[in-house]
Amino acid sequence: MKVEIITIGDEILIGQIVDTNSAWLGAQLSPLGWEVIRITTIPDTIEAITDAVDLALNRADLVLMTGGLGPTKDDVTKMALCQYYNCDLRFDEESFENIKAIFSHYKREISETNRQQAEIPAVSEALPNRLGTAPGMWFQNEKGILVSMPGIPYEMKCIMEDGVFPRIASMSDYVFEYKTTVVSGIPESIISERITDIETNLPEGVKVAYLPHYNLVRVRVTGRGFDRNSVLKDIDDVSKGIQKILGDAVVTEGDEKIQETIGKLLKARNETASFAESCTGGYVAHLITSVPGSSAYFPGSVVTYSYENKTEVLGVTPDSLWSYGAVSQEVVEKMCTAVRINNNTDYGVAISGIAGPGGGTDDKPVGTVWMAVCDKESVYSKVYHLRGDRQQNIERSGHLALELLRKRILNLI
Amino acid sequence: MKVEIITIGDEILIGQIVDTNSAWLGAQLSPLGWEVIRITTIPDTIEAITDAVDLALNRADLVLMTGGLGPTKDDVTKMALCQYYNCDLRFDEESFENIKAIFSHYKREISETNRQQAEIPAVSEALPNRLGTAPGMWFQNEKGILVSMPGIPYEMKCIMEDGVFPRIASMSDYVFEYKTTVVSGIPESIISERITDIETNLPEGVKVAYLPHYNLVRVRVTGRGFDRNSVLKDIDDVSKGIQKILGDAVVTEGDEKIQETIGKLLKARNETASFAESCTGGYVAHLITSVPGSSAYFPGSVVTYSYENKTEVLGVTPDSLWSYGAVSQEVVEKMCTAVRINNNTDYGVAISGIAGPGGGTDDKPVGTVWMAVCDKESVYSKVYHLRGDRQQNIERSGHLALELLRKRILNLI
Repeated sequence: MKVEIITIGDEILIGQIVDTNSAWLGAQLSPLGWEVIRITTIPDTIEAITDAVDLALNRADLVLMTGGLGPTKDDVTKMALCQYYNCDLRFDEESFENIKAIFSHYKREISETNRQQAEIPAVSEALPNRLGTAPGMWFQNEKGILVSMPGIPYEMKCIMEDGVFPRIASMSDYVFEYKTTVVSGIPESIISERITDIETNLPEGVKVAYLPHYNLVRVRVTGRGFDRNSVLKDIDDVSKGIQKILGDAVVTEGDEKIQETIGKLLKARNETASFAESCTGGYVAHLITSVPGSSAYFPGSVVTYSYENKTEVLGVTPDSLWSYGAVSQEVVEKMCTAVRINNNTDYGVAISGIAGPGGGTDDKPVGTVWMAVCDKESVYSKVYHLRGDRQQNIERSGHLALELLRKRILNLI
Repeated sequence: MKVEIITIGDEILIGQIVDTNSAWLGAQLSPLGWEVIRITTIPDTIEAITDAVDLALNRADLVLMTGGLGPTKDDVTKMALCQYYNCDLRFDEESFENIKAIFSHYKREISETNRQQAEIPAVSEALPNRLGTAPGMWFQNEKGILVSMPGIPYEMKCIMEDGVFPRIASMSDYVFEYKTTVVSGIPESIISERITDIETNLPEGVKVAYLPHYNLVRVRVTGRGFDRNSVLKDIDDVSKGIQKILGDAVVTEGDEKIQETIGKLLKARNETASFAESCTGGYVAHLITSVPGSSAYFPGSVVTYSYENKTEVLGVTPDSLWSYGAVSQEVVEKMCTAVRINNNTDYGVAISGIAGPGGGTDDKPVGTVWMAVCDKESVYSKVYHLRGDRQQNIERSGHLALELLRKRILNLI
């Protein structure tokens, strides 16, 4: 069964926001046996919408559409759908009850504009939206199924979970599965050469793909077919073969993020870690605490941005700051051991660098980042020379620091 | 001049990664007078690529394509383009020089796979890629221009900036501009009703759109035409009219993020702020330090995740933690004043809540978040009841905390 996603909104085309809805939909649909064959983003105009809907329904069995359902004049999706399905609007009582409930919760009066959100194309069925005032809409005819939903991510997810997944889950007996192997320290071209024998002898329906991300490469093995057990066995066999060849370079299996891998490692060892961040400015702590249950191994951390702060919070002497600079092996090692002791954790990690765009010198250009990781017995430090913009340098430093911590936990450094 | 963006990659369709390239391209192209009329994401197959390229070149003057240029077998973009343009591959010496330089920098041997990255379709011109081994490719014929680039964001950006923008900047004399007014505390339906007179009397080529985001609504006024001065005057007049009607609810103008607004406010006042984060886990510090130059007003902050940490770092007594709980007015106010004093800043902000999915109780369900903001004279605290998942609760709490700080700086609370 094939599905297309249509995202409506000038704000995406002019780059004011990033479309995250499509990725979420793709990730949910694939395991249900629905293959996303195309994602299209179009402007808020009736012509663009009817044209895209027509093309998509010709190619796919199911079309999921988000956006353009707000109460304001710029949103024309319902008008476009009335035109495409050749029908008028009808007033949906149940949707209006929901709108009234939401407004009474926030103690606001319902305006005529809000009342109109309960109007939906006559040929469609309303899909309840617990989290907002615009209902989802389900259209079904001989060409296929079309679902129109608001673009606000949590409202769209709520409608999909309540009203769409339960209906479409049983429609497809096609199976799609994948398994990812995360590899560190080998570029994709070398990985590909090492596993060339496997790649030229893949079972039917199995594909291998490479996704470089920071210093890691994710090797994804996908399988398609009609028998779940045989698809799972095929991708498992291929993944195991790849992992055997790559050995120690394999970081983890699955779509696990590095902060999740570290969470599992620390939990299993009943160990803890804390962080002293300068140039990453809280990004590492943010990654670590994005994992549910991280309080089990993360008691806290500090962001020490100024010289004074490094001295007062971590006891780095003004002397070493002025002799070596904040971005130096001496300072980052001191930050690292101090944060570990202050927080009484098994591991300490410190990052100090120049994220840019300002602050670089001939000696230490933008992108120079010192990192240290320590436990009770030892400190390991390393300098990196990154070459991205501020945001990239922050993100990359954060991931490199977590990779150092992973290696330290596993005694690989 | 119309442009379409084509993103190639199964990893996007199955939701393994989010396409951020298109938003970046859209944001860069619009001010140059290029209108993005469609963004399409397709799988890594020759049929899908040739089909999408053909459709896009029929609708647009310029097609920008990313992805599918890696050295591995899953990447078929070059093959598809050779087929579409009916040509063979040629070996591009300059691109090979670049590959050699990159491999010698990393002290790695060049493999045959890497050498093949210097092969490009014979009818195309290579566009240098300073940051990677796959060159960009420029195709031009009577149907229009097509540019193919790698999908890795920083490589794509580098090729656009070095080789594409300089060429296309002067091709369009069409003008597109927009101005955003950020509004706090009024839902979009009410804003729309208040400015209905303005919306029904818009000058030619001007549109108003609404983008709700967390507790804010961005009202965007766009203008299109051929005379930049008159377009700018039109959107300026409309924006000013809207701002006059909305008065105090207007937070800021432009696409400024709340952390940028706060940065400007603090800099102008020569003041500083520090943060004590529990449930946001470093996210607020990350937002603040994502702004270049933030060291001028941000000396540092703490993430206090455990009870012990709140006691040791911020002096919250175990008594108040056990009597009131970590998520309480008493504790968050104490955290707030302590972090301000410890860091010797003008303002302190503290956040303590239950991000979920675990940790909720009948009394304090998931989504309960206490926040406090203080200066030398006063502490203001407030509780929020959010209803998202962990990630949403963290992000929303972070933005709400910064909004509290903004109001405190401006004496609005």
